[in-house]
Amino acid sequence: MSDTPIKADWVALDWGTSNLRAWAMGADGSIRAEARSDAGMSGIAPGPEGFEPVLLGLAGDWLAEGRKTDVIACGMVGARQGWAEAGYRAVPAQPLDPGAITRAVAHDARLNVHILGGLSQTNPHDVMRGEETQIAGFLSRSPGFEGVVCLPGTHTKWAQIVGGEVFHFASFMTGELFALLAGKSILRHSLDLAHFERDAFVEAAEESLARPERIAAKLFTLRAEHLLQGADPAAASRLSGYLLGMEVAGAKPYWLGQPIALVAAGRHAERYGAIFDHLSVDYTTHDPDTCVLQGLSDARTHLLTPEGTA
Amino acid sequence: MSDTPIKADWVALDWGTSNLRAWAMGADGSIRAEARSDAGMSGIAPGPEGFEPVLLGLAGDWLAEGRKTDVIACGMVGARQGWAEAGYRAVPAQPLDPGAITRAVAHDARLNVHILGGLSQTNPHDVMRGEETQIAGFLSRSPGFEGVVCLPGTHTKWAQIVGGEVFHFASFMTGELFALLAGKSILRHSLDLAHFERDAFVEAAEESLARPERIAAKLFTLRAEHLLQGADPAAASRLSGYLLGMEVAGAKPYWLGQPIALVAAGRHAERYGAIFDHLSVDYTTHDPDTCVLQGLSDARTHLLTPEGTA
Repeated sequence: MSDTPIKADWVALDWGTSNLRAWAMGADGSIRAEARSDAGMSGIAPGPEGFEPVLLGLAGDWLAEGRKTDVIACGMVGARQGWAEAGYRAVPAQPLDPGAITRAVAHDARLNVHILGGLSQTNPHDVMRGEETQIAGFLSRSPGFEGVVCLPGTHTKWAQIVGGEVFHFASFMTGELFALLAGKSILRHSLDLAHFERDAFVEAAEESLARPERIAAKLFTLRAEHLLQGADPAAASRLSGYLLGMEVAGAKPYWLGQPIALVAAGRHAERYGAIFDHLSVDYTTHDPDTCVLQGLSDARTHLLTPEGTA
Repeated sequence: MSDTPIKADWVALDWGTSNLRAWAMGADGSIRAEARSDAGMSGIAPGPEGFEPVLLGLAGDWLAEGRKTDVIACGMVGARQGWAEAGYRAVPAQPLDPGAITRAVAHDARLNVHILGGLSQTNPHDVMRGEETQIAGFLSRSPGFEGVVCLPGTHTKWAQIVGGEVFHFASFMTGELFALLAGKSILRHSLDLAHFERDAFVEAAEESLARPERIAAKLFTLRAEHLLQGADPAAASRLSGYLLGMEVAGAKPYWLGQPIALVAAGRHAERYGAIFDHLSVDYTTHDPDTCVLQGLSDARTHLLTPEGTA
């Protein structure tokens, strides 16, 4: 049996700016196979000519001959520069709207590609693509949740959930700031990114929570310490703590007095969790893969069901 | 007479990380010629083998034959990776110490190279190289000044002056953050760096002064606005305002209730001045070139004078 090639009943895709993840799914929601690549949206020419070959290269073997396989995708693949533009819906809005799923052109007869749209906000201006599907999946698994969902990433999202809808949200460039400072700034000589010290991280976060306006001075202190005292193995943990502490300070209107659902794994779950523990706030942690697959799976269920009878 | 080549009585150098500026000086402090290049410290191999040819290429024509010409330098040229290491002096300290000038090896018999050292601080750790010479020149021209000196740049310095000494100082990575965000982040697509709107800048600075912890969210708003509404010609002014506003908020312990000497020209003088005007704080503006040349000139005077009799 081990030679039997894996075929998918449907394919789930989370296609972001810098990464593509694909799952071969069974009709019952089971995962038959998983694949990932760094072929993110930013490196691909818009339209099916650019995106379809990348998908076939990664997941083509999962497609059965002689029938169409549904592909349900979320993320930047639905941006203007993506495979097909899947518009934004303005908040307040349900995170998943079966009526707002965009059919994308594909040349391969085995493909039936659907892309979920993102959410937008006017005051202040903000956008998300991909996180709305994680939120939909989280809410599907935690019905009745009211509070704030925190989704760490390059542009971390904080979303306030009221009555099953995303009522308001805010994006923070924390992840991108960390990457720029760690990779391109004068601090790059002073950081051991493979090393993490929780205590140093929490202490730095605490300083930033108390005095967020000092961040640009705190950053230079990391460099000056290195020059005057030699490398501090905890410098990268402190940089991370300064930035995340500033974000959590800025997001206080979201989490104050609210339960937090932290949709994060690994490094992000550990770090945001450490700050929430320190602040003694009420939070639960939820796996992002589980959430996005639930959201994509729910979207497929809606597509299979005549609208209004689901 | 126009064919007479310019010769220098001495040469003043401000040699930073990314730029080199040189002046052919007369003995009376007059400027006979000026040259600049982008041959900053960071691109040159340490020691005289790397630095001396760069100096001769830029200013060699100013050197008379048959005698030694003093070259007085400040900035990163005195770092460990510079021409010769000129140590840091710990604050509180006078910005210029005639006893702490480092003689650098030069192979050309016409050169007599002296490098001024920087200042360091332990709590919190901080360093400066070059700005101490601007401060020395400023104080030489404004004797008795007590207050804070603000020196904008890649790593802006705020220095508290008490009794002619630098008592305490703080560096802010504001300039480097702006360059990284404008050049390397997702915001780079949304900014017209050639365009400046003072009102939008001041309004953004005001928002940051009031809510510095929101900076990472404000940054993403610039991107989201562009996606949803099209490019805002004032986006770069607002980015600058958010970052400078956060810095001025963080530097409040320095300037609150103190006179500010702003050592800045051009863009920096305009922007910091706009924020100080908005805050109705007491400040004067001083030309950085004039200050650094005064500091270098004072250092040369000390070198020519037997120690203790100056």
